[in-house]
Amino acid sequence: MTPELELPLTAVLAALDEPARARAVAELPVEAASSALAEMEVAEHPEEMLLAVGPDYAAELVEELPSDDAVDIIRELPPEDREAVLSEFEDRAEVEKLLTYSEDSAGGLMTTEVVAVSEEASLGEAIEEIRRQSEESDDLYQVYAVDGRGRLKGVIPITKLIVAPPSRRVREVMEPVPAVVRPEQDQEQVARLMARYNVAAVPVVDDGERLLGRITFDDVIDVVEAETTEDLLKFGGVSPEEDLSASWLGAVKSRLPWLYVNLLTAFLAGAVVYLFQSTISRVVALAVWMPIIAGMGGNAGTQALAVTVRRLALKELPKGRALGVIWKEMLVGAVNGIATGAVVALVAGITGEVWVLGLVVLLAMWGNLLVAGFAGAFIPILLENLGVDPAIASSIFVTTFTDVCGFLLLLGLGAILLM
Amino acid sequence: MTPELELPLTAVLAALDEPARARAVAELPVEAASSALAEMEVAEHPEEMLLAVGPDYAAELVEELPSDDAVDIIRELPPEDREAVLSEFEDRAEVEKLLTYSEDSAGGLMTTEVVAVSEEASLGEAIEEIRRQSEESDDLYQVYAVDGRGRLKGVIPITKLIVAPPSRRVREVMEPVPAVVRPEQDQEQVARLMARYNVAAVPVVDDGERLLGRITFDDVIDVVEAETTEDLLKFGGVSPEEDLSASWLGAVKSRLPWLYVNLLTAFLAGAVVYLFQSTISRVVALAVWMPIIAGMGGNAGTQALAVTVRRLALKELPKGRALGVIWKEMLVGAVNGIATGAVVALVAGITGEVWVLGLVVLLAMWGNLLVAGFAGAFIPILLENLGVDPAIASSIFVTTFTDVCGFLLLLGLGAILLM
Repeated sequence: MTPELELPLTAVLAALDEPARARAVAELPVEAASSALAEMEVAEHPEEMLLAVGPDYAAELVEELPSDDAVDIIRELPPEDREAVLSEFEDRAEVEKLLTYSEDSAGGLMTTEVVAVSEEASLGEAIEEIRRQSEESDDLYQVYAVDGRGRLKGVIPITKLIVAPPSRRVREVMEPVPAVVRPEQDQEQVARLMARYNVAAVPVVDDGERLLGRITFDDVIDVVEAETTEDLLKFGGVSPEEDLSASWLGAVKSRLPWLYVNLLTAFLAGAVVYLFQSTISRVVALAVWMPIIAGMGGNAGTQALAVTVRRLALKELPKGRALGVIWKEMLVGAVNGIATGAVVALVAGITGEVWVLGLVVLLAMWGNLLVAGFAGAFIPILLENLGVDPAIASSIFVTTFTDVCGFLLLLGLGAILLM
Repeated sequence: MTPELELPLTAVLAALDEPARARAVAELPVEAASSALAEMEVAEHPEEMLLAVGPDYAAELVEELPSDDAVDIIRELPPEDREAVLSEFEDRAEVEKLLTYSEDSAGGLMTTEVVAVSEEASLGEAIEEIRRQSEESDDLYQVYAVDGRGRLKGVIPITKLIVAPPSRRVREVMEPVPAVVRPEQDQEQVARLMARYNVAAVPVVDDGERLLGRITFDDVIDVVEAETTEDLLKFGGVSPEEDLSASWLGAVKSRLPWLYVNLLTAFLAGAVVYLFQSTISRVVALAVWMPIIAGMGGNAGTQALAVTVRRLALKELPKGRALGVIWKEMLVGAVNGIATGAVVALVAGITGEVWVLGLVVLLAMWGNLLVAGFAGAFIPILLENLGVDPAIASSIFVTTFTDVCGFLLLLGLGAILLM
C-alpha cells in the first residue's frame, strides 16, 4: 500500500546493466517478463532486452503482449532479428498487417484484443462470451456490440452488464458509441478526441464500420508526452524527427538545415549594419548598444511567440480574435519597451559622451519591443492561416525581424540625431 | 457513427456568443447542461456561463457534476458569487474540504465519487451495493474494497465481478492495489505514476490508508497538456503562471522581470564590444559580422538546449552520462560550425577588402558554435544538479554565453589578424 516500497519490476530491471538484465529476463516467468517489456519506455530499449534472450524465447514473450505493444517492439528490431522473431510467431499474418500502419496513426496505436459480443445475444450469453474472450482481467473498459458482419453497433456499459438481468438482450441495453476513429487517422487527433469525450478507450473501425481494434488511454498519455517533446524541439529550431538520444551525426543532419535558414536571415541583419558603416565609424558607441537592443527585442519577441504558438496549438485562438491578440502583444511590448528603455537610456546618458545617445537607445528599445510584440503574435498567426505549422521556425523569423528593426532604429536614429 | 457529424454539445455552445450561450444553458435539461459544463476547458470559462444563469440554478448544475469538476469551477468564481452558489449547496462541507487542497495536488484533482464495498461482503452483495452507489454508468473503472474503518484493502477487477459466482467473498477475489497517492502529492507525480502503471484510475488515501477519492485518466491528460504549456512558456522566457489569455497587464507583470534579467546579461555582451571600440572604428566591417556570428551561436545553443532540457524533463539523462552528452553537443557544434563557417568565410572573403576577414569569421563562427554546444548542454545540466528547474531562464544564460564568446572571438581575432 505504500508506493515507495512497491518497486515495479521495470524499475528493478532498469537499474541493472545490459547483461544482468538479459539474464534476469531469461529467469523470469513468461507473464512477468512480458508485462515488464510492455511497461518499458521506448527509450529504455525493450528490443535490446528481447534480442539478448534469443529468437525462440523472444517470440514467446512478444506473443504474450497486447498486439500494440508487440508491434511497437518488433518495429524497433533490426530487419534480420525481426524476421527471426516473426518466423517463430503463430499468428504472423496479423502482426504483419499491423506493421503496415504508420507508427503515428490510430492503426499503429491500436490493439486488436477487444471484447465484442453479438448485439442479438442476451446479457447472460454476453457474459459467457466475455469469460471466453477476456484474457487480461483488468483492462475491460468497454464491451462492444457488433452485428453479424462484424460492424460496430454500440457499446455496453460495464454497470449494465453487472446490474441488468441476464435475460435482457445486448441490443436493448447497448448505448451509441460516442466516438470512433479510422486506422489512418493521426494519433494527435485520437488523443484530442479521447480527452474531449473523456473515454478510456476508443474503438477503431474500417470504412465498412467493421471493428478492427481499440486504443486505450495509456497509449494516448504516451502520445501527449511525445507531442510535448516535438513542440519544444520545434520551438528550439530542431527537427522534431531528431531522436533525443540521436548520435552526433543524426543531430547534425537534423539541425544544420535550420542553421542555414537562420544564416540566410542573419545576412539581412548584417546588411542593415552594412548600410550604416559610416555612422558606426563616426559614433562607435552605437556598436556597443547593437547587441543590447537586438537581444532584448529577440527575447521579448520569443515571449510573445511562445504564448501565441501555445494558444494556437490548444485551439484557444478563434480567428476573429487574432487582431485583438496582436494588439495586446504590441501593448505589452510598448510598456516593457518603456520600462527597459528607461534603464538603458540612463546608462547610455551617463556613460556616453552626449546625452542624446540616451534618447537614441530609449527610442530604439521602445520601438524594437513594440515590433517584437507585433512579430511574435503576427508571424505564427500568419503561418497558421497559410496552413504551415506555426511552431516550426517561427523563432528564426521573429528574431530576424527584431534584429533588422533594432539595427534600423538604433543606427537610423543615431545617424539623424548624433551626426 | 461518423464522428464528423456528431457535434458535441460543448462545441455548439462554444460557437455561440456569451448571452446566447447563457440562454441556451438555461433552456437545457440539468443533466445535459451540467455535463456540457464538465467537458468545457478552463479557457472556455465555464464559470462565466454559470454566473449568467443565476446562483440557484448554478448551484443545481454544479451539484450534478463530479466533485472534482464542481470544485474546479467554484474555484474560478469571484468570492461573492462563490458564496452565493455555495450557500445553495446541500453538501457544502464536502466541497469546502475539497477547496482546501491545492489546485495542482492530487487532492485538487480527485473526485470523491468512488464505488467502494466491504471486503467482507459477497460478490452478490457487492453488486447490490454498486447498483446503489453508481450514478454515472460509464466510468466504473475500478471497484474498491475497504475494511470496517474505511481503509483501502484491495481492488476488484471488473471481469471478476461479471464472471465469478455471486456467492464468493470480495476478500477472495480482490487484488492488491497497484498504486495509491496521498492528497498532498503533486499532480505531475500522479500523472507519471498512472502512465507508468497504465491504470485508468488511482485511489487517493489519507495517512490512515482511508479511501478519500480517486483520480481518473482524463484529469491526467489535462495535467500533461498543462505541463506542455508550462514547459514551452518557460523555454520562451515567460513565467509559467502567465495565463494564456491573460490581460496585457498580467502579461507585463509576468514577462518584465525576465526582460530585466536578460538586460543585465546583455550588458555583458555590450561590455565586450565596448572593450573593442578602437578595433571596430578601424575595421568597421567587423560590426557587420557581429550580429551574424552572435545570432548563429544563439540559435545553435538553443537547439542543444531544447534537446537537453527535454531529456532532463523525461528523466532520460542518467547522471553518469552527463559528460558524454556535453561532449556530443560540442562535437555537433564543431561540425555545424565548420559547415556554416565555410559559407560566411566565402562571403566575407569575396565582399571584404582583405581575404583575412574570411579567416576571422570562419574561426569565430566555428569557435562560437562549439561554445554554443557546450553551453546548451552544460547550463541545464548544471542547473538540474543545483536543484533549479533547468527549463527556466536557461535560454537567457545560453545566449549571453554565445553573445559574449562570439564577440570576443570575432573582435579579438580581428584585433590580432586585421590590424
